[in-house]
Amino acid sequence: MPFQQEPHKLLMIPGPIEVADDVLFANAHPSVAHTSPQFVPVFGEAIKMIREVVDAPSAQPIVIAGSGTLGWDMAATNLLEPGDEVLVLTTGYFGDSFADCLATYGAKPTKLTAPVGAPSSLDEVAQALRSKSYKAITITHVDTSTGVLNDPESICRVVKEVSPDTLIILDGVCSVASEEIHMDAWGIDYVLFASQKGIGCPPGLSLSVASERAMRTLETRKTPPATFFGSWKRWVPVMQAYESGNVAYFATPPVQLIYALHASLKTITKGSVSLAERYQRHKDASKQVKEGIEALGLEQLAVPEARTTGVANGMTAVRYPPGMGAADILPKMAERGVVFGAGLHKACKDEYFRIGHMGVSVVDKERNDISTILHHLAEVLKENGFSK
Amino acid sequence: MPFQQEPHKLLMIPGPIEVADDVLFANAHPSVAHTSPQFVPVFGEAIKMIREVVDAPSAQPIVIAGSGTLGWDMAATNLLEPGDEVLVLTTGYFGDSFADCLATYGAKPTKLTAPVGAPSSLDEVAQALRSKSYKAITITHVDTSTGVLNDPESICRVVKEVSPDTLIILDGVCSVASEEIHMDAWGIDYVLFASQKGIGCPPGLSLSVASERAMRTLETRKTPPATFFGSWKRWVPVMQAYESGNVAYFATPPVQLIYALHASLKTITKGSVSLAERYQRHKDASKQVKEGIEALGLEQLAVPEARTTGVANGMTAVRYPPGMGAADILPKMAERGVVFGAGLHKACKDEYFRIGHMGVSVVDKERNDISTILHHLAEVLKENGFSK
Repeated sequence: MPFQQEPHKLLMIPGPIEVADDVLFANAHPSVAHTSPQFVPVFGEAIKMIREVVDAPSAQPIVIAGSGTLGWDMAATNLLEPGDEVLVLTTGYFGDSFADCLATYGAKPTKLTAPVGAPSSLDEVAQALRSKSYKAITITHVDTSTGVLNDPESICRVVKEVSPDTLIILDGVCSVASEEIHMDAWGIDYVLFASQKGIGCPPGLSLSVASERAMRTLETRKTPPATFFGSWKRWVPVMQAYESGNVAYFATPPVQLIYALHASLKTITKGSVSLAERYQRHKDASKQVKEGIEALGLEQLAVPEARTTGVANGMTAVRYPPGMGAADILPKMAERGVVFGAGLHKACKDEYFRIGHMGVSVVDKERNDISTILHHLAEVLKENGFSK
Repeated sequence: MPFQQEPHKLLMIPGPIEVADDVLFANAHPSVAHTSPQFVPVFGEAIKMIREVVDAPSAQPIVIAGSGTLGWDMAATNLLEPGDEVLVLTTGYFGDSFADCLATYGAKPTKLTAPVGAPSSLDEVAQALRSKSYKAITITHVDTSTGVLNDPESICRVVKEVSPDTLIILDGVCSVASEEIHMDAWGIDYVLFASQKGIGCPPGLSLSVASERAMRTLETRKTPPATFFGSWKRWVPVMQAYESGNVAYFATPPVQLIYALHASLKTITKGSVSLAERYQRHKDASKQVKEGIEALGLEQLAVPEARTTGVANGMTAVRYPPGMGAADILPKMAERGVVFGAGLHKACKDEYFRIGHMGVSVVDKERNDISTILHHLAEVLKENGFSK
């Protein structure tokens, strides 16, 4: 191609993340028909690989144009019916918004809100589930606004003990492919995510996976799903057709993004770095970042007791040092070619910034992205006259 | 980039269409934050250019990840309320599906179905509007399944005369940027479209434009909009922020697709070929295709009286010659490197095929795409022993 890639800053926010060149190139695939024999296996294989990433051999992936948010709508309209009680574990902005989304469609969310910087309490989850009959519980695996990591395995265990009929919905937007997930083994009914975080693609895809129980719930609902574009009854036959090498049509799939998704999932599931090693590299990078910022005299947004097990491996929320704010750090990092994210939690968004460390930035060690950002952060703190 | 573009067949279906290399390259833009100072003007300018394409200086564009279909959902949930009567002009598969979508959300569609291959009758529209009070009318400008072209200017005139309070919704998925549209002058309230047809981008964007009256309708509705992901109340402030050079967040915009959209809209609105000339080139190419297939002894799906004014300028639906079907034409064209589309109208899908001729294939005359496809079609007919 007669084109030269634009120079760009190192993007270290909790999504979108840096995208590998082969994935970007796949996103520039020349036009092919969504019904062509060339595209069918690409879409079909992508669907199969998604199943591997969430470790759910018998579940149904759903890949459509949209964003992570659309997964909330699909949960609200396909799995739930008006009046259904839902327990929403909230650990930041995205848990709160998920509750807003559910209420839009007539479900009745009850929020169980953890203190800022703390994960959901298992005891409180158990207590809430005992106090009322809930059709579903939602868990934000990592809340992108705070970096808080919930423990879905333990939460699922509590749900199965206390209220086994409650459907378990996992918001994995900021966790799929950067945090370990075993959807089948843990008994999760629906995982929703997006393309631009751990999956390592450009944004523009709503990705999700529904369990067999979720599909049965859809089949046995009393009211019709209150969605057209997000209707699993319309999309699932399309997914099944492509996966079996055939074509079906509901709405035009985003062909180039699916080529990009295929390229990225191939690296994730069949590349030289195993999925287990991918998770380990996220843990290692996370440790490096968290120890690195502490060595610089900064502290995590997370409450002290959560700073090792209750925080994401794909991002870190960092408090500004006393007397400093966004203007002292973020533009100066950008001048040095590194983009961090601002705070997002309404209660304290001016008190912290966010570093993303997912995907190729941590899996491809030769990039040295983590060392680079810590180096520049140290320099910026020094310029600001801050030392620990 | 160390990559070589894959060879690909000439894609001449009515969407997705051939995408210019600069647009594909924009779709491979390196990751930048959706909130970055670099991306804000790209998004903002794309919004402004959309207004130019539909000729609606004061209307509100909405650009989100999705497909054309999502525009139906947004019309159903933002403009309409449960129980609202809607007159749906149907000239093929997509009119019928639009009615299904409206009914999903509780609106009451009444279909006015034209004979296969004929546009909607103005007299019948007037009569229907007199017989009942309709909150809205929907017009499929070009039904991709049949290539039938409706005349929105005349239909709008009838609506304004007979039932001026009726909102006018135009499905422009297969017409925007390939057929002339003057949204403001004609009095259209909502135009919905997608990225992968006349706009010349990869698929993955729901594009639409709401009039001031449409926005007032949203503000004065009695029930809250039954959508979260598609809520204009949530998206319009985001569009307005980006257009004014600021950032707002609801869900992550598809950054690379918006770079691609920007590149393509720049060619459409500020390139060496004016918008008027773009429409003319679509008309010229359409004439060339339609005369070309007739010279080969084939005939259009359209009823005879519609074959000049009632057919799209961006696509042609062609009947197979007697005794021939898809297997005789489509795979043989593909062997020659040209992709045509199969039939799609449920009443007669095995009786015709579809040729797309939109965007760069007709605007860039040096490509000679129309001559190429007519040449190969003539050869394929000859191989099949067919002569007129």
